[in-house]
Amino acid sequence: MPELRKDPVVGRWVIIATDRAKRPTDFVRERVQIRGSSFCPFCYGNETKTPPEVLAYRSDGSRPDTPGWTLRVVPNKFPALGIEGTLNRQGEGLYDKMSGIGAHEVIIETPDHRATLATLAAGQIESVLWAYRDRILDLKKDRRFRYMLIFKNHGEAAGASLEHTHSQLIALPVVPKRVLEETECCREYYGLKERCLFCDVMRQEATSGVRLVAENEEFVALSPFAARFPFEIWLVPKFHQSAFEESSKRQFEQLAVLLKDMLGRLDAVLDHPAYNYVIHTSPVPEASNDYYHWHLEIMPKLTKLAGFEWGTGFYINPTPPEESAKFLREAAAPVGAVSATR
Amino acid sequence: MPELRKDPVVGRWVIIATDRAKRPTDFVRERVQIRGSSFCPFCYGNETKTPPEVLAYRSDGSRPDTPGWTLRVVPNKFPALGIEGTLNRQGEGLYDKMSGIGAHEVIIETPDHRATLATLAAGQIESVLWAYRDRILDLKKDRRFRYMLIFKNHGEAAGASLEHTHSQLIALPVVPKRVLEETECCREYYGLKERCLFCDVMRQEATSGVRLVAENEEFVALSPFAARFPFEIWLVPKFHQSAFEESSKRQFEQLAVLLKDMLGRLDAVLDHPAYNYVIHTSPVPEASNDYYHWHLEIMPKLTKLAGFEWGTGFYINPTPPEESAKFLREAAAPVGAVSATR
Repeated sequence: MPELRKDPVVGRWVIIATDRAKRPTDFVRERVQIRGSSFCPFCYGNETKTPPEVLAYRSDGSRPDTPGWTLRVVPNKFPALGIEGTLNRQGEGLYDKMSGIGAHEVIIETPDHRATLATLAAGQIESVLWAYRDRILDLKKDRRFRYMLIFKNHGEAAGASLEHTHSQLIALPVVPKRVLEETECCREYYGLKERCLFCDVMRQEATSGVRLVAENEEFVALSPFAARFPFEIWLVPKFHQSAFEESSKRQFEQLAVLLKDMLGRLDAVLDHPAYNYVIHTSPVPEASNDYYHWHLEIMPKLTKLAGFEWGTGFYINPTPPEESAKFLREAAAPVGAVSATR
Repeated sequence: MPELRKDPVVGRWVIIATDRAKRPTDFVRERVQIRGSSFCPFCYGNETKTPPEVLAYRSDGSRPDTPGWTLRVVPNKFPALGIEGTLNRQGEGLYDKMSGIGAHEVIIETPDHRATLATLAAGQIESVLWAYRDRILDLKKDRRFRYMLIFKNHGEAAGASLEHTHSQLIALPVVPKRVLEETECCREYYGLKERCLFCDVMRQEATSGVRLVAENEEFVALSPFAARFPFEIWLVPKFHQSAFEESSKRQFEQLAVLLKDMLGRLDAVLDHPAYNYVIHTSPVPEASNDYYHWHLEIMPKLTKLAGFEWGTGFYINPTPPEESAKFLREAAAPVGAVSATR
């Protein structure tokens, strides 16, 4: 008998198939491969093919927009939103609209075209996290923006249009509905209980242990109770923290290690799947608070979405999160991470 | 400059690209083709390869589960939910869950393996609508069910696993979040204004005309103001009606004509795209009401979804709905439908 489970954060019901649970080898799809290409705008020597960099990490004193960087952030050449102008909020009869003002940046995670985020050294992944933070702090100075969305598309099936490993940042003048739902639900829970909902979830998960994958001193990797997707994984800070950009040096170090660990395990168990990850963090106007708990959600792209999911916000997950967690726990873990052993 | 638009029904913000609006030919994808196959469980003669039929339309007096039917409804052989058992609602710490009880049925729309819904005669499409209604009314007798979801996946890219044209019905013991959002928002609007939100939207759309595609006496086809997808189309009853299953004979006749018209135009403009459609109707417990307005949403599968959309419920639509509507208005319309001429 399948099970219906409700996500405690956003109230979404998910069908978890239990009878014929799908195993990693049941998902037929193309593995993500780096093919190399004759021309890549993210490689050394092609710096002028992107808009001028807004941030770069360089230890060799090289000049902006020339080779020598280890990480580089540039505006997206085809941005979803425009950076110049006023918001011009207005109604149109009963509709609401505003100008599409925002920032859309690309974080080029390494000069190495052949690398993936999973194969980078933990120190380089940490640099990527610092770049996210640096850009968020800079964009926060612009009072038009209400939310900073950090996400990564890995592999063509996950929406990546260039194979050279990169993440994206979009600064938005409105708080997206999906974020509002989470923060509002957490605020309500805090009002009732005087406790953070995610902190409560983490305590319960630590006790049961069945959905834990790995942990270190600062972070836990788990498969959520009402996972929408097979092998969906959340990385959550162990101690309450509402905003990603307020993380400490130690936290970024440990997150980098656990993120590398998790991406490595997904590559091992699912044979290099396409995936998306998204950082869920507090909106700018109330970034420091007691009720919301930032985290990073990784969603391997294994199943096709169809009308059912679109129409209802209702997901069918053919692999119970307990199974996903077990497969990932048993996968070889890189040095530096400790599998949860319950 | 792109535009940010808010959906008045669920409050979702969408980025509408306006500068380099994508035209139909900009979407590169495989056209949906019927290949035919050595074996199809939905074809004449293979009736015993599906679970026994729960409904069939037969004018020739043929026996159940034998050839002779013009439309046939069978339980899904691999159902997402089980029909037998009790709901067994329970908590697990702070989580909520229940047994995966529900019905999952397949509506085989025609015996003709080579047909698509778009190529069927309007009368046969009307039969499909009657079958939806007959099954909803029957399943409503089961007091465990709170929502009946009718949807169709056309083409492999849209999640169809069998190419023989069919729709699906899932009866659920909970109201999905996406539906609750719509009905709650409409209820609130009605409380404030004493008017149905969709009726107001329809009045505004009729006045502006820029997003209308076609209409007949009972239905309007339009591209919604905050469309998530290029060529997203909604078919909406012109006069207030909260539940699909309460439609009249005349309404089903006219909906069949307009649905055939729209699917034909999508085939013409987008060269036979994969698509999903979903009927949005009132939950069972309050099916007849003044505040919600049922409708059918068609979503051609043209773009890939990536981390951005997953993480935020925030969509980037590269084709403004006014452009989509214009392309579809200008497409050749089959006999029986009248293009909106504004």
